[in-house]
Amino acid sequence: MNAPELGLPMAVPAEGLPARVRVHEVGARDGLQNEKATVPTVVKAEFIRRLAGTGLTTIEATSFVHPKWVPQLADAEDLYPQVLDLPVSLPVLVPNERGLDRALALGARRVAVFASATESFARANLNRTVDEALAMFEPVVTRAKAQGADVHVRGYLSMCFGDPWEGPVPVPQVVRVCKALLDMGCDELSLGDTIGVATPGHVTALLTALAEADVPVSALGVHFHDTYGQALANTLAALQRGVTTVDASAGGLGGCPFAKSATGNLATEDLVWMLRGLGIDTGVDLGRLVATSVWMAAHLGRPSPSRTVRALSHQES
Amino acid sequence: MNAPELGLPMAVPAEGLPARVRVHEVGARDGLQNEKATVPTVVKAEFIRRLAGTGLTTIEATSFVHPKWVPQLADAEDLYPQVLDLPVSLPVLVPNERGLDRALALGARRVAVFASATESFARANLNRTVDEALAMFEPVVTRAKAQGADVHVRGYLSMCFGDPWEGPVPVPQVVRVCKALLDMGCDELSLGDTIGVATPGHVTALLTALAEADVPVSALGVHFHDTYGQALANTLAALQRGVTTVDASAGGLGGCPFAKSATGNLATEDLVWMLRGLGIDTGVDLGRLVATSVWMAAHLGRPSPSRTVRALSHQES
Repeated sequence: MNAPELGLPMAVPAEGLPARVRVHEVGARDGLQNEKATVPTVVKAEFIRRLAGTGLTTIEATSFVHPKWVPQLADAEDLYPQVLDLPVSLPVLVPNERGLDRALALGARRVAVFASATESFARANLNRTVDEALAMFEPVVTRAKAQGADVHVRGYLSMCFGDPWEGPVPVPQVVRVCKALLDMGCDELSLGDTIGVATPGHVTALLTALAEADVPVSALGVHFHDTYGQALANTLAALQRGVTTVDASAGGLGGCPFAKSATGNLATEDLVWMLRGLGIDTGVDLGRLVATSVWMAAHLGRPSPSRTVRALSHQES
Repeated sequence: MNAPELGLPMAVPAEGLPARVRVHEVGARDGLQNEKATVPTVVKAEFIRRLAGTGLTTIEATSFVHPKWVPQLADAEDLYPQVLDLPVSLPVLVPNERGLDRALALGARRVAVFASATESFARANLNRTVDEALAMFEPVVTRAKAQGADVHVRGYLSMCFGDPWEGPVPVPQVVRVCKALLDMGCDELSLGDTIGVATPGHVTALLTALAEADVPVSALGVHFHDTYGQALANTLAALQRGVTTVDASAGGLGGCPFAKSATGNLATEDLVWMLRGLGIDTGVDLGRLVATSVWMAAHLGRPSPSRTVRALSHQES
């Protein structure tokens, strides 16, 4: 059957969902950090530039961790000045005060720290207990906020649902670390399902508990991985609880779905498709975004795992 | 990081969802019908046998259409007697009275007809108008129901959300055909998003309109395709409206995700993972189901597109 194909879903709003969602694009940082290939700086800069041209307003650019930890992002000092002229927010990851100094020196006004909800992952990722890691972040957050009212600090929280060593993570444990991050001055949290085991009821339970602990939903973002195909259903559950910030990775960058260690970020295109269908404004031009992901996939030498990218780029071919 | 990985999500029920869902497994019929390779009859029989061993209770077995239309299922007469001893429901597709006769002669007690919600697809698939197709099915349904109270008739309805020629499909148009199928005696309908363009608000709108038209939700199943990655989010929206019958295809069989004409059935494993996470009983052993899909993928010579199959089979390797 040869027939014209649809490029966009029909918009049918659902009750009780937000009118607008801010997509926090993590492909250039969380995505490329977890790709095997190290991408040349010039390609990263062009990628961020193209992402900014799609209408995305928040594009996490890189990470000022020690190059030994994340060699894929060792070029942060070179990259960041190349994109700083873009009229979008360009958050960067900072693990400690040294990283904060480097980021601030280059003009960063949005920074992010990354904590863990579980002791096992805090030990594995930061070689600290949860509380030791929080103590390490406190001066980072305090100093960042002291820079001025326009400096924004995001706190990533890993393993909010399940942990590969500890199994299911108790909701009160997550709430405690969220409160600690907000109390030290974080403007926003990103609730991470690092290993992709969350399901919608678990998402609702965590968001309900956070609301009951007086955490405003406006301070919460969600960060789902599609390891078991649950990321978009989990996002719907989060929208139904009032969340308006959703992390996603262009083209699903960050964990090849064919590799053993697949992490599988939620693809921005799949998210934007759903939000358009729900009549929720994101400001993102889906066609341009797909074209950007197809371009990046060519640089990485493998197709995007995003179903929307595949469907729409096949249409265009 | 080497660590034990989780094999199942934590069960966290959500309010307002059903306690139990019946998975209507379509891999052996809708799945294999849309695979390029024709699978030997003995492999199909073993596939159905293994699916029955996972706890699935409804396994659509084959189609009694003319072999010229669907050569992949031309062996229906050989296959069906080989699996009829299994203690599960084994529905078969029947396009007309001739197909019904063939199915009944072999002992089938669950049959399905397949209508279209749009004129374009009715013309393309059946070379009839929507009403001509309904008129063709009426004697099929009437004669099937006259066989006895234990004979169950399902009505598939294609293109319930979008149509490749007509674009978005108006909800009242779908409701009209649903009512006609139920009025002629269908016990159950399967609402198909044949090209995968549905989003959750559209699903809610259709189910709400059907409820307002006095269609009992117990007579409705949903059949989503994952072309744009929306199938599981759409399923969640359907569960929230009380739907308890969900079609899915083991391993996501039926449309290679790498092919231009990808149809992409919702993978049964991704569905069962979500339902387990929601504490919703399906009776399905996920490990056995994954093993069955891995076995079938080996016969087809390509990996399963199901994210859950990939994640869990990598763990097991």
